[in-house]
Amino acid sequence: MSLLTIERKVLEKNDALAEKNRETLRRHGIFCINIVSSPGSGKTTLIERTLEGVKNLIRIAVIEGDVQTDLDARRIAAYGVPTVQIVTNGGCHLEAHLIADALNGISLADADLLLIENVGNLVCPASYDLGEEIKVVVLSVTEGDDKPLKYPAMFRNAAVLVVNKIDLLPYLRCSIDTLVANALGINPRLKVFRLSSATSEGVEAWTSWLVESVARHRKEPSA
Amino acid sequence: MSLLTIERKVLEKNDALAEKNRETLRRHGIFCINIVSSPGSGKTTLIERTLEGVKNLIRIAVIEGDVQTDLDARRIAAYGVPTVQIVTNGGCHLEAHLIADALNGISLADADLLLIENVGNLVCPASYDLGEEIKVVVLSVTEGDDKPLKYPAMFRNAAVLVVNKIDLLPYLRCSIDTLVANALGINPRLKVFRLSSATSEGVEAWTSWLVESVARHRKEPSA
Repeated sequence: MSLLTIERKVLEKNDALAEKNRETLRRHGIFCINIVSSPGSGKTTLIERTLEGVKNLIRIAVIEGDVQTDLDARRIAAYGVPTVQIVTNGGCHLEAHLIADALNGISLADADLLLIENVGNLVCPASYDLGEEIKVVVLSVTEGDDKPLKYPAMFRNAAVLVVNKIDLLPYLRCSIDTLVANALGINPRLKVFRLSSATSEGVEAWTSWLVESVARHRKEPSA
Repeated sequence: MSLLTIERKVLEKNDALAEKNRETLRRHGIFCINIVSSPGSGKTTLIERTLEGVKNLIRIAVIEGDVQTDLDARRIAAYGVPTVQIVTNGGCHLEAHLIADALNGISLADADLLLIENVGNLVCPASYDLGEEIKVVVLSVTEGDDKPLKYPAMFRNAAVLVVNKIDLLPYLRCSIDTLVANALGINPRLKVFRLSSATSEGVEAWTSWLVESVARHRKEPSA
């Protein structure tokens, strides 16, 4: 059996488990997003701002994926929401079976929205369906406007692009318009938010969209 | 045969090829460094500043690794140094066999230093020896001071840490001292440079060290 065949089988097995996760989450009316990015793009801070904005409007649970440490889960648990940490111990992405295990640690009847923070990696997590409704890719303007071209799979597979750290634009040689145009060139259907999790500029448009998406999903879970 | 066994065999095969690359490079007295980081940490800009600083002192060749596009190789080739682009087509790291192929495209008799820019990924490239003398991990202060703790393998396997984009420190909630302490906690032997490829602050210490390392390597290639 060749390595490529085995990789395909691993992905097929993952996809089957992801489908089961999706069924479980839809049965409970939970809108699930898989948040992906490079290390340090600001996924955890975005989740913090999101919790501050909407945790009194909708019930949120969080799964934190990290190669090592439970630093992020501790930051999120401080907001008083159910949080499960997955440590991959060197693994470069989350997989559906890890999410299935984590779901056992969450009271699904008490959640409207599940945020999964993937491992910081702009390559490997693109290939692994976790059972989410959508992938949200976060890209910091500090990473440069060419990144969608250089790492296209993640932008192709995502439904939403959050351009983060826009407060730093005055100090960078990065054109946010070029960045967004490059991303839309890869995937014209991307919904784009431009925000700063540090200053909260632009965060409200994101949280409003999230609340609306949760409400829409409750009505039509498989739409 | 289990997947873990196959992964081990892939790594063993890679390590054997890497050893051959290392022998080839040492035979030609070439000091080779494997530059690794997250996407957008500034590897390519660091190479640009390095070329400006030392390309009249030592003879440099560059191998550019990217998931997609030859944007980086074009930037580097503009400096008039031999440059080979490897496009991994979705692959999340460079491997020794790709470097072996690329070496066929470089006149080894005419190089003192080979810079390999790996794919932007702080996880997977840590496991793959390419035949380099050392790994240099670049970390941008925009990524946050917790990253060495969260992605320890890369910092454990590197000999040098370049902390980049220090010009942005006034605008960030990142303590560079905490960042460096976290990295040295993982690997106390790390040699650390703090610099900005954008403003060139601190770049000279790095290029001086590089020139000295090339001279030392010429005398004792396997030291």
